[in-house]
Amino acid sequence: MSVGIVFPQQAHFSSPLMLKSGALLPVFDLVYETYGTLNAAKSNAILVCHALSGHHHVAGYYADQTENIGWWDNIIGPGRPLDTDRFFIVGVNNLGGCHGSTGPASVNPATGKHWGADFPVVTVEDWVEAQARLADILGIDAWAAVIGGSLGGMQALQWTLSFPERVRHSLVIAAAAKLSAENIAFNEIARQAILSDPDFHGGNYYAHHVRPLNGLRLARMLGHITYLSDDQMAEKFGRRQRPGAGSYSFDVEFEIESYLRYQGDKFAGLFDANTYLRMTRALDYFDPALAYDGQLATALAPARASFLVIAFSTDWRFAPFRSREIVHALVHNGQSVAYAESNCAHGHDSFLMEDAYYHAVVASYLQRITL
Amino acid sequence: MSVGIVFPQQAHFSSPLMLKSGALLPVFDLVYETYGTLNAAKSNAILVCHALSGHHHVAGYYADQTENIGWWDNIIGPGRPLDTDRFFIVGVNNLGGCHGSTGPASVNPATGKHWGADFPVVTVEDWVEAQARLADILGIDAWAAVIGGSLGGMQALQWTLSFPERVRHSLVIAAAAKLSAENIAFNEIARQAILSDPDFHGGNYYAHHVRPLNGLRLARMLGHITYLSDDQMAEKFGRRQRPGAGSYSFDVEFEIESYLRYQGDKFAGLFDANTYLRMTRALDYFDPALAYDGQLATALAPARASFLVIAFSTDWRFAPFRSREIVHALVHNGQSVAYAESNCAHGHDSFLMEDAYYHAVVASYLQRITL
Repeated sequence: MSVGIVFPQQAHFSSPLMLKSGALLPVFDLVYETYGTLNAAKSNAILVCHALSGHHHVAGYYADQTENIGWWDNIIGPGRPLDTDRFFIVGVNNLGGCHGSTGPASVNPATGKHWGADFPVVTVEDWVEAQARLADILGIDAWAAVIGGSLGGMQALQWTLSFPERVRHSLVIAAAAKLSAENIAFNEIARQAILSDPDFHGGNYYAHHVRPLNGLRLARMLGHITYLSDDQMAEKFGRRQRPGAGSYSFDVEFEIESYLRYQGDKFAGLFDANTYLRMTRALDYFDPALAYDGQLATALAPARASFLVIAFSTDWRFAPFRSREIVHALVHNGQSVAYAESNCAHGHDSFLMEDAYYHAVVASYLQRITL
Repeated sequence: MSVGIVFPQQAHFSSPLMLKSGALLPVFDLVYETYGTLNAAKSNAILVCHALSGHHHVAGYYADQTENIGWWDNIIGPGRPLDTDRFFIVGVNNLGGCHGSTGPASVNPATGKHWGADFPVVTVEDWVEAQARLADILGIDAWAAVIGGSLGGMQALQWTLSFPERVRHSLVIAAAAKLSAENIAFNEIARQAILSDPDFHGGNYYAHHVRPLNGLRLARMLGHITYLSDDQMAEKFGRRQRPGAGSYSFDVEFEIESYLRYQGDKFAGLFDANTYLRMTRALDYFDPALAYDGQLATALAPARASFLVIAFSTDWRFAPFRSREIVHALVHNGQSVAYAESNCAHGHDSFLMEDAYYHAVVASYLQRITL
């Protein structure tokens, strides 16, 4: 069942946040939503971390926009795996985002202008720090669980390292302990598409009243290829042609072209390019083992959480062996970890899908959490 | 041993060529090179077909540019798999190319201006037709073999269908009988990067004395990801950082970024964007089974050639199962086919590499050809 009508809330933080880059963010806002009720012991809170293009609107819908349903609505609600009859769920838009939290499109109080290019590069560690500030405000000493898919899974993992005592369970889904060269390569091309768009203006396009729509569109089209599985694309589109195909031109001829252009245009109209740059860079930088000579087990040793790691067999962006690297490190350390692999056909995007096995695994894991 | 000093030749065709699109090319030139000696019976000729970014300079070097070595030099020469002591090898720049054959950058005799956007979309079938005209000029009734990798392999396959009596052996390497939706998706993003570059000017950039360098650069960067294997990228670059990394910016931080930018810039400086558009479209369109309700075996039935099909286990652009589709169709028809799979680590690019097993297979196959 859906959580029904929801509404966003805003938290203002007036003490500065030191970022991993060394930059200092003097003040910032985080926009968030909550579903369910925080119990008296404040022991039933779950933090949902979003991926590259996600935000705080995770479940339910807005009273005045009933079609605007949260991006992970299928897993959250009464009786759903993240059961709001039992848990208090928090969704937050990350720092640097473009859905209400302080980001490049926000006004820099020091200048009275949009941050633009001056907004610092943020990292997964920075997001966790900011989320911890939100937890403080909400009175949550420790999360019952932190959960996320893809880049969200990296945050779920980082929480256990940044604040070992503040997270009891970490659900790391369709993620990896670091990007591969190929992963970085895809991000780099997306960034180059944005950075080289004449409307980018060095990141200060707000002042020019334009947006690098074309670069962002190309970036999203490219991202989409990596979110889907080859098989699924073959099944969904194959070589099916559009009506009027056979024009021997560079117009849309194949269904897959039409789909990608549509997805690219839609996204470019809604998302901020400066945020996209920073989200992809945060992905590139994430590598908890870097400070430990590449030894992931050493890096994960401080974690006190129990882990559920989930991978999808059709995901080629973060293939299952990437998840198993995390599992192996935890097993090596004698830490508590469960691992599941789903055959959901939707590639990397599977983590967003209502796959029966995958959802049953999450539901079953969370049901056994003591509050 | 290298074939040594070579030189390009030019053939002019003054009777019009009807293209698959219905467009008529009134006159055209093809630039080509030959290595070895055509025997008296003219029975020892091998045609080498090039892939997306290839051309007629397949082997050897130019007297005044000794560093300009042909793109497949490692397989051609005295004692090499394509043995010039025995065979007469022909390399040709395809119609629509940008290395001397008539293409979008050529002057349209009807207008006295660059063809630009008006240059028709060419197909694999059209290339084979044009190559047949060249064979006529050279007095070659039937090729001992037609060989190519990737898009070149598609031409080697098409030759057996367009001119069953004119090709005795077809060597189809790292190819597929058609692109998948994912393959088309990558091409589409490359094209969109070019088409949306403000310097593209609808394809008539020659008149504006600019070139869509940025779009072509992005297209090539993207192509490069699909040419390499994930493993190879991991081994070659991994997450290695550049000196001065850690800047928390969008500058080059990882080696893979540096590599891609370098490759993109280099290519954009040398290649014509209009040609790139047409080469990728030719890839998209290639689908001999389309006219036969998707039945590849039916489509391949007219071939009279013997086939050698080679795939590479690390190639994810055209994975081995795509080659085996061709093999299965030929086997189904009772046609002559040999199949080899190499473990060369270089992904799709393996077909260009000097892999011992792969080269031995080609050498052994060609040695047994009777002339």
